[in-house]
Amino acid sequence: MRKALFALLLGAALPALADEGMWTFDNFPAAAVKAKYGADIDAAWLDRVRRSTIRLSNCTASFVSPDGLILTNHHCVEACLANLSSKETSLVQSGFVSRNRNDEPRCATQVADVLQAMENITGKVTKAVAGLDATAANDARKKALTQLEQACEKGSKLKCEAVTLYQGGQYFLYKYKRYDDVRLVLAPEADIASFGGDPDNFQFPRWSLDFSLLRAYENGKPAKTPDHLPIRFEGPEAGELVFVSGHPGSTARLDSRAELEFQRDLAWPNWLLRYSELRGRYIQFGKSSEAAERIVEEPLNSLENGIKVRRKLLDALHEDALLDGKSAAEGALRAKMAGDASIGDPWTDIERATTIERALYLPYLFIEAGGGFSSANFRYARTLVRAAAERAKPNTERLREYTDAALARLEQQTLAPIPVYAELENLTLSFSLERMREWLGPDHPVVRQLLASDSPDGLAAKLIAGTKLADPAVRKQLWDGGAAAIAASDDPMIRLALAIDAPARAVRKRYEDEVEAPISAASERIAAARFKAYGTNVYPDATFTLRLNYGTVAGWNEGGKDIAPFTRLATAFERATGSSPFLIPESWQKARGSLDLQTPFCISTTSDIVGGNSGSPLIDAKGRIVGLMFDGNIHSISGNYWFDTAKNRAIAVHPAIIREALQKVYHADAVLSELGAR
Amino acid sequence: MRKALFALLLGAALPALADEGMWTFDNFPAAAVKAKYGADIDAAWLDRVRRSTIRLSNCTASFVSPDGLILTNHHCVEACLANLSSKETSLVQSGFVSRNRNDEPRCATQVADVLQAMENITGKVTKAVAGLDATAANDARKKALTQLEQACEKGSKLKCEAVTLYQGGQYFLYKYKRYDDVRLVLAPEADIASFGGDPDNFQFPRWSLDFSLLRAYENGKPAKTPDHLPIRFEGPEAGELVFVSGHPGSTARLDSRAELEFQRDLAWPNWLLRYSELRGRYIQFGKSSEAAERIVEEPLNSLENGIKVRRKLLDALHEDALLDGKSAAEGALRAKMAGDASIGDPWTDIERATTIERALYLPYLFIEAGGGFSSANFRYARTLVRAAAERAKPNTERLREYTDAALARLEQQTLAPIPVYAELENLTLSFSLERMREWLGPDHPVVRQLLASDSPDGLAAKLIAGTKLADPAVRKQLWDGGAAAIAASDDPMIRLALAIDAPARAVRKRYEDEVEAPISAASERIAAARFKAYGTNVYPDATFTLRLNYGTVAGWNEGGKDIAPFTRLATAFERATGSSPFLIPESWQKARGSLDLQTPFCISTTSDIVGGNSGSPLIDAKGRIVGLMFDGNIHSISGNYWFDTAKNRAIAVHPAIIREALQKVYHADAVLSELGAR
Repeated sequence: MRKALFALLLGAALPALADEGMWTFDNFPAAAVKAKYGADIDAAWLDRVRRSTIRLSNCTASFVSPDGLILTNHHCVEACLANLSSKETSLVQSGFVSRNRNDEPRCATQVADVLQAMENITGKVTKAVAGLDATAANDARKKALTQLEQACEKGSKLKCEAVTLYQGGQYFLYKYKRYDDVRLVLAPEADIASFGGDPDNFQFPRWSLDFSLLRAYENGKPAKTPDHLPIRFEGPEAGELVFVSGHPGSTARLDSRAELEFQRDLAWPNWLLRYSELRGRYIQFGKSSEAAERIVEEPLNSLENGIKVRRKLLDALHEDALLDGKSAAEGALRAKMAGDASIGDPWTDIERATTIERALYLPYLFIEAGGGFSSANFRYARTLVRAAAERAKPNTERLREYTDAALARLEQQTLAPIPVYAELENLTLSFSLERMREWLGPDHPVVRQLLASDSPDGLAAKLIAGTKLADPAVRKQLWDGGAAAIAASDDPMIRLALAIDAPARAVRKRYEDEVEAPISAASERIAAARFKAYGTNVYPDATFTLRLNYGTVAGWNEGGKDIAPFTRLATAFERATGSSPFLIPESWQKARGSLDLQTPFCISTTSDIVGGNSGSPLIDAKGRIVGLMFDGNIHSISGNYWFDTAKNRAIAVHPAIIREALQKVYHADAVLSELGAR
Repeated sequence: MRKALFALLLGAALPALADEGMWTFDNFPAAAVKAKYGADIDAAWLDRVRRSTIRLSNCTASFVSPDGLILTNHHCVEACLANLSSKETSLVQSGFVSRNRNDEPRCATQVADVLQAMENITGKVTKAVAGLDATAANDARKKALTQLEQACEKGSKLKCEAVTLYQGGQYFLYKYKRYDDVRLVLAPEADIASFGGDPDNFQFPRWSLDFSLLRAYENGKPAKTPDHLPIRFEGPEAGELVFVSGHPGSTARLDSRAELEFQRDLAWPNWLLRYSELRGRYIQFGKSSEAAERIVEEPLNSLENGIKVRRKLLDALHEDALLDGKSAAEGALRAKMAGDASIGDPWTDIERATTIERALYLPYLFIEAGGGFSSANFRYARTLVRAAAERAKPNTERLREYTDAALARLEQQTLAPIPVYAELENLTLSFSLERMREWLGPDHPVVRQLLASDSPDGLAAKLIAGTKLADPAVRKQLWDGGAAAIAASDDPMIRLALAIDAPARAVRKRYEDEVEAPISAASERIAAARFKAYGTNVYPDATFTLRLNYGTVAGWNEGGKDIAPFTRLATAFERATGSSPFLIPESWQKARGSLDLQTPFCISTTSDIVGGNSGSPLIDAKGRIVGLMFDGNIHSISGNYWFDTAKNRAIAVHPAIIREALQKVYHADAVLSELGAR
């Protein structure tokens, strides 16, 4: 593993050998692929794949028909399924099959973005911050990015987003076509989509039918999408060259040792402690009634995924080789840059900033970053209060999440008619208030302000019983009414958001000035040093922007045992216990006699992916879909920090099991025709 | 902190300066105390304090009257209070005041042990294992200790326990007088005893009235205890020399770096993840009804304490200075021992053993050590099944916890009539089965054996509904009936314990042979090296055996702010919120007008204590009680690994607040007379 790390950190030429890397489309190592695999990845191939790849709000997807049909994971639409459910019925549990295009319900907060162009703005950003100290540069950089986004969107229908690559080594504007009307076409039952549940999550061999279908709409009609990818239903061969186009969410492979130590010592342990407890509260709550079980299912699944990820991230940080390798790489780069005044000693600057971060982190987390107020109603209140205040300011003076470029999406998210369950709100708000008191201490001013004569349970109950923000009409009145409506509101959640707004903004300002600013400034200098020393033949850390990687269909060796790269349907039936999460749903039991039990189910590949790549198409050299990425094996989680060529594997749903399901279980004839599979 | 560590690890003469150390009574540094403080601690003082100090099953206590009256913490009797409660009433919540000796109820599983003598058996143990390899030596050592205990108890009324000191540098027989009839005299309400609850736990300043009174009985009558300690109710002065006599539970200050890394990487993260989730399940369960709240209160309090401790232990292990200092100390000792064949390279042996431990730990934890079967009914079943099998074997061939020396106590614990709540059993058993499946994986043979066609919830429900082991009479029948009764039993929990007994014993055997044995052998050699290099003027790690330390009444400096060593009653009323855990109970509200609000409440001292010292008397140079230890400050938790002279502080209840409570709140006149306080 040490080798893989050095390959990246030292910028050596190893990536082509290791099939490692989340490459931007403008810097894809096509020559290396040609040399190693003989495949021609030309500009036309890249353009078509790029224009067929979709960024969802939380995942990746791809167009698979000319009529806007979208293939992605079941777990990527689970929130949509939950939003379309109620206490009485759960689309997560029952699944959903649209019988014609008129009954495709809208996913109220979902969007589909397709990358149209990338513009390098590094020079403009560098100019804007030239000569400023770290704090001033941090402000000036944000303003410059806001201005550049604004200018880009003016007179264009594209969404423009500023993107920071190489920890500040490059800045880009990414320009997207946005579909903001995305509807549900088909989703299997959760019991088969996430067969094996949390125990099997991040495991392989695997039998999860983690796929779903959406459709992009424009002007109330299915969108025309000439750029889309055909599906090769027979799937790939073992050893075959494959590509993944998608949006890896975030990695920290270029982070400094001090930043990793902060995560190891504070961020992950704190997160894991709090959310393991919340997991217990959710599970116990779910046992209180069938309705409770339904409404808690989606948040619980999402939480358990997060716990497993962070657990393994912490494990990775406990490998001495990771931190030792980081020190060695930093020492080597520092030695190469000795005497270069433009670089200086950015590592010590970051170390100093993370020392401050250790002191500021908990108040920042609980008061500003939402850790003390886990509640949909509170998030609405915070957004409404701040949107009213920020919209009154000039665009470049606003908090970044309230700039003009962000407002339309924010409004969609805030006003979408999705269910808010008071029982769950009571649970999460009371939990987070109690943990805020635990971690900040009962004598912290904000804690005293809220809990001097109330218990966390009591305060949460009062707030949730009193607030009307679960009603989208009330939110719309406050959004439209702006500052005057907020000032006049006696909604207790609005009053709470107002009451803590000043201390929350104050701790955010300190965090931005004393932690974020010096780390940004130092990281830019480290990026410059890296380019000077090793050139630009490296890939940037993941930033939930479009990337392409290559690899092969392959298993791995686990403790002396070879793991084969394909699983088959028969084994799922053998592993079923009769109880969730190892329950084969009735629809599959009924169809069992007609199913080909030798149908391949899941695929293991060497693709370098992380969270955010969920729903990405697995593509062959001819640009056809041969799988649907949905997970990695347990070793893939440490991919956040380094890439272990020997063991890090990505996991895809095999297209053959998707066809088998559509044909024999869900009888989705129209969809099969649209996919050219009949 | 590095200095404090080196003081211990290198065995330098610093302890006398640092007031660090948990000294055995046979090796107390009286000369150092005399030199630094001018106090004479002679053999008579030591003997009287030792014979007045009590080891409870989980804590320390002391005799405070000639009639067997025992002073300890409220949290040390909380399990007894819970056992004396029911779904309808809670002595934890209401407290208890005995009005005369006839209504003192028995704590069914409590014992009070008083150390009478210590016999050094190092030579005998060394002889028994001479020339054997690590695995054989491990077995032979256990047999030798069993034989020595047996011989010691023969013809004596004392309880004899083998004690390992200095990680195997010394072996002793500790001989106790045991009182196995211990009764409850007085306990305040939990709301004042643990005022501040979990948020204030391990915090100072503090206002917790964490005291209670028990009484030892012999032959149905209050025991005669001429050795007891008088209470100096006015308490100590700031800066005064004070001593703590008690039973620190366990520390790992002499552990090797590899052992600490195992705890950092595996043991504590795993524990914290699982028990944080259980905390959430408990809390949510407690909200389901008032009865649920009552029955979950004591287990929840205990759990939250454990979480805070391990959270801070993990923090300590993330301090690079701790592990770096450990490496430096090991390197120094290794260098001194170079060429000494009798020492060899024990550090590498331990490293190799902990590598195996990483692979064996999870199956050992879940299948043998109870992690997969959290249930009082299961613990009864396991004990009954194994006791039947083990009692049929010769004494030295048995598992150590079933030797003749252990059986009487085991029988008491197994047959004691204490309530077992099915709802809570369902919760904990289902939780632990589910986590066993998560951590071992659904395909582990034992997991498949239990859960191939059942969910954790379903299996737990069947077992708890079917078992009769909550009935003490059923347990007695199985205990008395031995192997035949066990074989004939169709109790599902007995069948479960039988079904997993073979795999559980198998993983235990591997753990003992491949982890424990080489670590024991290597640790003995490290201890020998340390004695050779640094002499015997060091103290051993804590082992829940009697120790004495010295220090002073003092606060500390926290982030530039001086913390005074005393708190006062008035502030408790100011901090009250009206809700638990910041609720002042009604009895105190009613008495408020009569109370002296300037009464000192808690005391901070530099005493070197850890868990197990709870309930220890804080003693002045004249042998009088001037406080009741119940906690440490947040920095004290890392005392498991090293002693931070600047910040590690112990916390005691001030005797003046105890007197105030007895007089004006609980009107416990008889007790006051018995304490000579009227």
